[in-house]
Amino acid sequence: MTAAIDFYFDFSSPYGYLAAQVIDDIGARHGIDVAWRPFLLGAVFKITGAQPLPHTPMKDKYAVVDMPRAARLLGVPFVVPDSFPFQSVAACRAYYWLAEDDPARSRDFARAVFDAAFGHGRDMGSAETVIEEAVKLGVDREALGAALQDPAVKDRLRQEVDAAIARGVFGSPFFFLDNEPFWGHDRLDQVDRWLETGGW
Amino acid sequence: MTAAIDFYFDFSSPYGYLAAQVIDDIGARHGIDVAWRPFLLGAVFKITGAQPLPHTPMKDKYAVVDMPRAARLLGVPFVVPDSFPFQSVAACRAYYWLAEDDPARSRDFARAVFDAAFGHGRDMGSAETVIEEAVKLGVDREALGAALQDPAVKDRLRQEVDAAIARGVFGSPFFFLDNEPFWGHDRLDQVDRWLETGGW
Repeated sequence: MTAAIDFYFDFSSPYGYLAAQVIDDIGARHGIDVAWRPFLLGAVFKITGAQPLPHTPMKDKYAVVDMPRAARLLGVPFVVPDSFPFQSVAACRAYYWLAEDDPARSRDFARAVFDAAFGHGRDMGSAETVIEEAVKLGVDREALGAALQDPAVKDRLRQEVDAAIARGVFGSPFFFLDNEPFWGHDRLDQVDRWLETGGW
Repeated sequence: MTAAIDFYFDFSSPYGYLAAQVIDDIGARHGIDVAWRPFLLGAVFKITGAQPLPHTPMKDKYAVVDMPRAARLLGVPFVVPDSFPFQSVAACRAYYWLAEDDPARSRDFARAVFDAAFGHGRDMGSAETVIEEAVKLGVDREALGAALQDPAVKDRLRQEVDAAIARGVFGSPFFFLDNEPFWGHDRLDQVDRWLETGGW
């Protein structure tokens, strides 16, 4: 019996955005919680030597076709943000700070960041835009502004990123069902089936 | 109306092997020919900077889980060949040489190479093993041995690889439906649906 779906993603990841549109439905269908775990793909790329999509020859051109095509298949909006990829440090820090007191609100915030970035093309790489999206959800502007500079909040994110890397997360999205790893939004069918059957 | 499925793969690609198990069935279901087009992933990696899976930190460990799991889901055997990745130049040259006179036999040969490598773990990187598999299909040993050294055969493969790169093929397997590109055996559901619906 799988305890939870661990859902790792980078806020700047288009395929992470696509997975975010459906992962909670998959969890709900099987009565299983989904733990949203944003991390920093840039830290992983330093280990794997990978580059962001727009900087990878040939793959960059394919992504321009594949990403919106996958979004159309899901029936969700998709635009490439004004700045892409963007630094997702501020969004990640805000997420984990919010999660300490109110996990439900942190998830609403994560959805709002994804929606702003890939639904509306907003550059979510700055503290200012991250704070604006949080304020729309009722988060206190001053408190969040201070949190983004708080060494304890910075440490928390560092620990989350280190833990993701230690677990073998090298891409976004990435899922664990207990210790079974699945990489890519195109493994969600397998995730769904694994939960259905208990594995194969 | 899609004229054909262009199926690009490297003989040394495990996911190419998986796609090879099902692509003809997908074509047959829609009454569409599949053109098998082996190429050399190494030539592409020089452009993209990618590395073979066993040389990519973190992804290497994941592949050891993901490849056999995907094979089990398809219900096909899967082993990692004794030498992996292997040089697929000889197999590619043999394929295109066979295809000139007898496309059906070249496809049987391609299936035999994949089966030897990933069904039985054989190192298909040498001319000797490639020739042995071809001989089992009735191919003349001497003629194939000579063809593998023939400058015209070498040129043919070079042209095929150049054409694949010019078309944007950067991974294995890779598919085109007319000019619509799909990368990865995990896009076969989309390929199937595209043929069903004419696109979305």
